[in-house]
Amino acid sequence: MESKPVGTRSLFGEGDMQSAFQVRRLIREGRWTSHTSGLADRHVQGNVVILPQSLAGDFLRYCQRNPKPCPLLAVSEPGDRSLPSLGANIDICTDVPRYRVWHHGELAGEPTNITTLWRDDLVTFVIGCSFSFEQALIEAGLSLRHVEQGRNVAMFRTNLATEAAGPFSGPMVVTMRPLRAADVIRAVQVTSRFPNVHGAPIHIGDPSLIGIADLSRPDYGDAVEVLPDELPVFWACGVTPQAAIQQARPEFCITHAPGAMLITDLLNHQLASF
Amino acid sequence: MESKPVGTRSLFGEGDMQSAFQVRRLIREGRWTSHTSGLADRHVQGNVVILPQSLAGDFLRYCQRNPKPCPLLAVSEPGDRSLPSLGANIDICTDVPRYRVWHHGELAGEPTNITTLWRDDLVTFVIGCSFSFEQALIEAGLSLRHVEQGRNVAMFRTNLATEAAGPFSGPMVVTMRPLRAADVIRAVQVTSRFPNVHGAPIHIGDPSLIGIADLSRPDYGDAVEVLPDELPVFWACGVTPQAAIQQARPEFCITHAPGAMLITDLLNHQLASF
Repeated sequence: MESKPVGTRSLFGEGDMQSAFQVRRLIREGRWTSHTSGLADRHVQGNVVILPQSLAGDFLRYCQRNPKPCPLLAVSEPGDRSLPSLGANIDICTDVPRYRVWHHGELAGEPTNITTLWRDDLVTFVIGCSFSFEQALIEAGLSLRHVEQGRNVAMFRTNLATEAAGPFSGPMVVTMRPLRAADVIRAVQVTSRFPNVHGAPIHIGDPSLIGIADLSRPDYGDAVEVLPDELPVFWACGVTPQAAIQQARPEFCITHAPGAMLITDLLNHQLASF
Repeated sequence: MESKPVGTRSLFGEGDMQSAFQVRRLIREGRWTSHTSGLADRHVQGNVVILPQSLAGDFLRYCQRNPKPCPLLAVSEPGDRSLPSLGANIDICTDVPRYRVWHHGELAGEPTNITTLWRDDLVTFVIGCSFSFEQALIEAGLSLRHVEQGRNVAMFRTNLATEAAGPFSGPMVVTMRPLRAADVIRAVQVTSRFPNVHGAPIHIGDPSLIGIADLSRPDYGDAVEVLPDELPVFWACGVTPQAAIQQARPEFCITHAPGAMLITDLLNHQLASF
């Protein structure tokens, strides 16, 4: 979720309307191994979780019980590396810029290709990401401070418990964006249209009411200032399922590396509910 | 906007689905001369302003320039006592429970029938009212403290200037309802669907940012407590055009008496935009 780094321009061309397919091809060829913020920005990007089939049922129920932090865009067939509902010719083993491999909840590596790690019992979950609604907010004329400042969004663990399923449980993680009141109202309207990418906020105002002690010390990402005429606005965050997985400590799991998402063929506007 | 008084039950029947026509007939017969909160509550009620044709063009432009506080539901033909788009057989001279007559901005009387005051140059404006969106909020499961406590809603003059038109100008007047954060989010969603009855809030949070010094001292209506885990939420209010009229001091004007609205045949749900 960091800013687009120097080098993006030369690789992708400034101002070009990048197709998801073109960007995925560069990623597949190993020519792009970093985060995907700002790439193919009309397109939906997704958080990736790959689990053994023995845990897939529990994780699927966890997502369905917690749709705001874990909005499922797609679930693969066991062993199937494709995701036909999300894009033509997606190969989940090659099309994410950088992966994280976990053994019993411990980070075991950050490869850029997982072809040699693939197993016939693995199931891929793709979960909506706030890039989509941030794009909609920017198109609606709102300023997002972390985007303007080229920082990662501020993320916090709350005291809101998710609904458990099997070994998966834990607190809801939220993102925080400071907005003036008129923009808070507009942001509720705009993000309500996108339930598949976290939807409406889950809290506005006093952070202590959801168990956040200090807005200047996020649990993940970068701190961002809240000005006196602004309200902190909190959305459910796709880090929530990652926290649940770390807590569940599955014997084997692969996720995307932070910010290095799967770029799908879906357009952000296709997700709008009205 | 006060609570339904004792006596309503016996007159209208407890729990009956009251038709707008039935209630208007009782009003027309002089059997109901009080406020209309809670009567025929599926139906849209409207603020009423009656002005000479010489001022009607300016007032129409004022409403069109300030759609959030002055959402126009209907404008009559000059001299025409009917409002066919709002209901069958409405007679604006008899179908409002109580009127206020103004001469040069001074209150000159509160009759229950204006047949003898009617002139061929008078134009009737009907402006949406927050009863409609309050009904939608209650149906969505929200608690509105002033409704539960049987009080009038708290109203405040702000430092937000309306767009002037001819002699009509002045500050936006707002209503304030205290809500917890989750209900603030839901309230933005619900009221956004009703642009013809003030629509989404115009402010959330710090009252001083819109020129309100003390929430415990409303300019109109009754004070209502804001609890520590609540945010004050502000909507544009139909008192705004009345304040503009008092400031313009027209030679002659008739309005409804506070809370004693015109009950239309429109259903609240007919106003929903999606």
